[in-house]
Amino acid sequence: MYDVLRTGPSEGNAMPDVPEFALQERPQHDLRRIGAHPDHWYPLAWSREVKRGRPYAAQFAGEPIVLVRPHAGPVYALEDRCAHRQVPLSQGVVDGDALRCCYHGWTYDATGRCTDVPYLGKGKLPNGVRAYPCREKDGLIFVWPGDGEAGALPDLGHVADPAFKVRRFGRVVGCHYSFMHENLMDMNHQFLHRKQMGQIAPRYVGRRAGPDWIECDYTFARTGGRQPWGEAAILGRRSGASTQHRDLMRIRTQYPHQTLKIWISGDDPVMQLWINYVPVDRAQRSNRTFGLIQVRRPKVPLLLDLAWPVLVWFTERIFAEDRAIVEMEQAAHDRQGADWNQEVFPVIRELRALLAECGAPMDTPVAP
Amino acid sequence: MYDVLRTGPSEGNAMPDVPEFALQERPQHDLRRIGAHPDHWYPLAWSREVKRGRPYAAQFAGEPIVLVRPHAGPVYALEDRCAHRQVPLSQGVVDGDALRCCYHGWTYDATGRCTDVPYLGKGKLPNGVRAYPCREKDGLIFVWPGDGEAGALPDLGHVADPAFKVRRFGRVVGCHYSFMHENLMDMNHQFLHRKQMGQIAPRYVGRRAGPDWIECDYTFARTGGRQPWGEAAILGRRSGASTQHRDLMRIRTQYPHQTLKIWISGDDPVMQLWINYVPVDRAQRSNRTFGLIQVRRPKVPLLLDLAWPVLVWFTERIFAEDRAIVEMEQAAHDRQGADWNQEVFPVIRELRALLAECGAPMDTPVAP
Amino acid sequence: MYDVLRTGPSEGNAMPDVPEFALQERPQHDLRRIGAHPDHWYPLAWSREVKRGRPYAAQFAGEPIVLVRPHAGPVYALEDRCAHRQVPLSQGVVDGDALRCCYHGWTYDATGRCTDVPYLGKGKLPNGVRAYPCREKDGLIFVWPGDGEAGALPDLGHVADPAFKVRRFGRVVGCHYSFMHENLMDMNHQFLHRKQMGQIAPRYVGRRAGPDWIECDYTFARTGGRQPWGEAAILGRRSGASTQHRDLMRIRTQYPHQTLKIWISGDDPVMQLWINYVPVDRAQRSNRTFGLIQVRRPKVPLLLDLAWPVLVWFTERIFAEDRAIVEMEQAAHDRQGADWNQEVFPVIRELRALLAECGAPMDTPVAP
Repeated sequence: MYDVLRTGPSEGNAMPDVPEFALQERPQHDLRRIGAHPDHWYPLAWSREVKRGRPYAAQFAGEPIVLVRPHAGPVYALEDRCAHRQVPLSQGVVDGDALRCCYHGWTYDATGRCTDVPYLGKGKLPNGVRAYPCREKDGLIFVWPGDGEAGALPDLGHVADPAFKVRRFGRVVGCHYSFMHENLMDMNHQFLHRKQMGQIAPRYVGRRAGPDWIECDYTFARTGGRQPWGEAAILGRRSGASTQHRDLMRIRTQYPHQTLKIWISGDDPVMQLWINYVPVDRAQRSNRTFGLIQVRRPKVPLLLDLAWPVLVWFTERIFAEDRAIVEMEQAAHDRQGADWNQEVFPVIRELRALLAECGAPMDTPVAP
Repeated sequence: MYDVLRTGPSEGNAMPDVPEFALQERPQHDLRRIGAHPDHWYPLAWSREVKRGRPYAAQFAGEPIVLVRPHAGPVYALEDRCAHRQVPLSQGVVDGDALRCCYHGWTYDATGRCTDVPYLGKGKLPNGVRAYPCREKDGLIFVWPGDGEAGALPDLGHVADPAFKVRRFGRVVGCHYSFMHENLMDMNHQFLHRKQMGQIAPRYVGRRAGPDWIECDYTFARTGGRQPWGEAAILGRRSGASTQHRDLMRIRTQYPHQTLKIWISGDDPVMQLWINYVPVDRAQRSNRTFGLIQVRRPKVPLLLDLAWPVLVWFTERIFAEDRAIVEMEQAAHDRQGADWNQEVFPVIRELRALLAECGAPMDTPVAP
Repeated sequence: MYDVLRTGPSEGNAMPDVPEFALQERPQHDLRRIGAHPDHWYPLAWSREVKRGRPYAAQFAGEPIVLVRPHAGPVYALEDRCAHRQVPLSQGVVDGDALRCCYHGWTYDATGRCTDVPYLGKGKLPNGVRAYPCREKDGLIFVWPGDGEAGALPDLGHVADPAFKVRRFGRVVGCHYSFMHENLMDMNHQFLHRKQMGQIAPRYVGRRAGPDWIECDYTFARTGGRQPWGEAAILGRRSGASTQHRDLMRIRTQYPHQTLKIWISGDDPVMQLWINYVPVDRAQRSNRTFGLIQVRRPKVPLLLDLAWPVLVWFTERIFAEDRAIVEMEQAAHDRQGADWNQEVFPVIRELRALLAECGAPMDTPVAP
């Protein structure tokens, strides 16, 4: 019954040539021990999570970062540990536009400078804490955790475009960010979603790459079963099975972000996903996922609103299945202590090389 | 009041000579870090646990093994991780007599050969996974985890004999398998079971050994209190206390299995236990116990059936006490980082030497 | 609004001179990895916890110690592991004035000597276990965990004096004992207790030190808000805010114990605290706190009894805030793997040097 998933190598746009490989093949580097490069913008929170006057404790790869929305002025980001005794500043008190540590009341401004120690003279103030470039855009709070000069914010697509309806989703997933990139880019895993998607056959139709990006195209055929309602909410209603491949899906890793776009006709995608996987712990064995699903509103816009709960349920189910499987991958890696992956799909091999090349050495883990 | 437990060295079959020992005595090797030798048959599941078409996730010393009962044909055992991305095959789907990985649908037959990758041509199929010799006998599924050639299945005693009634029991116990062997072989620990057994005095009466086995005989005297009902269910009803030693108990470690037999008269034991302790985790600090208690049916067989619930309750209680104490031994070993055992009973010293000699080096533990 | 906490350096008894310090300053030794010196008396339990005939499992820095209150005679303390197989003797049975291991019945007297192994002749008895000096005083059971000769018990103050009412409190706190000493000695952390204490300004007025002690004096001014009832229960009722500094608080670390005394007039303190932080685990990242608050009964003694529930609630709240913050300090140390503390208050620097000098190397942690 699962034969429908097989896409033969018989056509022009077939699976690219796959060399023989041996069972003992091991990568030179272990991708799962390469860190996300800090010299990029990463979302550390949804805007709604960072309330005025309430410090918010975030993390990037084990580095504690406090986000502060002062009573006036833009959100800012500081190292989340007091210079004095290293307790989290996120436990402190927003005082005007400054942040006061909860323990002895040491106070820092938006640049991290220590501006007050209640029991010290002004001339004796100690050094402060690190401040990070911080920007808010389209409901996300971005931080630049690296030392390099902050560049432009990423293009999030149509999030601010009223012609699109947006769903924000995500949660902490217990795996290295690279498993997430590979999961989304390899559409050959539709077998995993057989209960949600029914019998659907992806076909690889090409790829392109640059120094810090790779993208891959697929078409799909529904070879059996009914179209799921969640899919119908995005692509429109279709009836019956067919061996005809249609639609175009393009998945792109633009380091460190990822996008997925679907076209059913014309130049404009009917659906677009922007997603980023932000390492949480120092060993980067978990990531917080921030996803923005953007669906073009149909001619009768109310239809999309009516279908929205179905779409939400559908995408949550798919995401839950993906989360479960990537966490199994991480657990296998933990147990084995190494990456035993035997990849046969060249696109994923290239994606892995890209992620390794664009990444950064991981900090030596701190003893627990 | 516990003096009754003392068996004086005054008789012919007394405690064998015990040399002096020093408090700082340390073993050359640490028995608790020696692995169970994989070149034996080990039960990995009860037959009833492995349902048709439902893969079962087992383990031997941290090695994940999936047991599959296909829609036709005998149970088989494979390495429980897909050759592709190492997720557990036990999460997959039984498809005819093959096992399909849940993620990308890679498929393996009973020999571990990869027979299908839905998006690859047949000529390009990758290597498969390891298959293990696997046999089902008397309600247990045995696997041979080692590389050596599989030998004959162990003799389980009277499990298939209608003259005996069988109780299957066991669970995961948080300790190295060697603590289990020592616990059963050293009957001087009746003090532990004083609440269940009352005042009972074991007497060591001899031992024999071979290259891969050791056995030890005891007699017992009830020196006070009432006979427990659970014991009566096995040995028959007896009244009053006596200093007369009677019955014969023989405990044998036939590496890696263990048996316990009780004779009250004649050549045939009235009760027999077959038990095996299968290491679960890689560090072998836990084991899954599989026990088969076999009780000869009396002339009036209904009596045994009536007494059965009492016997079950009694053996569960004894097993629970033993489990608690061996887990304390493991906890002490964990805390100390070494075996500080000061054994005074030569039988146990010989058993330890046997277990060390028959064992295998443990795999280097994988970092968590 | 928190300006009230600032004590200016403008007066005679001002903050002592604070040298410049650099952000990268690191201590030579890491105080959080220095053990509490075992050659002192440490309370291991409240008297009421150690019941007659019921062995009590205590710990000092990971060393298991069993406290036994025999049917006759004083409490004694033994190494809490049987010499035979290392299971806890605290699981055993008090037999007369001896302690019998629950497993094979090995028996130890109050000096740790093995006096019986039920299945061995008396001439063959093995070595015993370690015994520790043990004394009971004023509701506490003290043990001397070190090898040095036991000295005099510490002075607990007015615990046995009927002119004082005593509150015993404490619990396990998840941090190194040194954080506790620093927390109590540095009164500049009143900002932490702003919800309980209101606006109160401490002023440092001097310190003294010796080879194994340091003490530090403060006065206080209430600069706003109402006096908390809990404070009133101790110091008496006062109305209104004032910039007048009054009362005297003296905090003293007399290694390894700590005291806090408050005078409002005259030679006798109105309140006195004796407190000790006993390391629990081997890495000494948790401590069990034993505190004795002693409040002088006023002329109308009933008033104190009436106010007692308020005092209990108040001290519990303060202790809970302190516990939360020191556990954050320990968590920061765990995450960083080192002490990044940048102390600006010379008293605390001197206290840290004292704790380091009086401490002992920590045992190499045992692998888990």
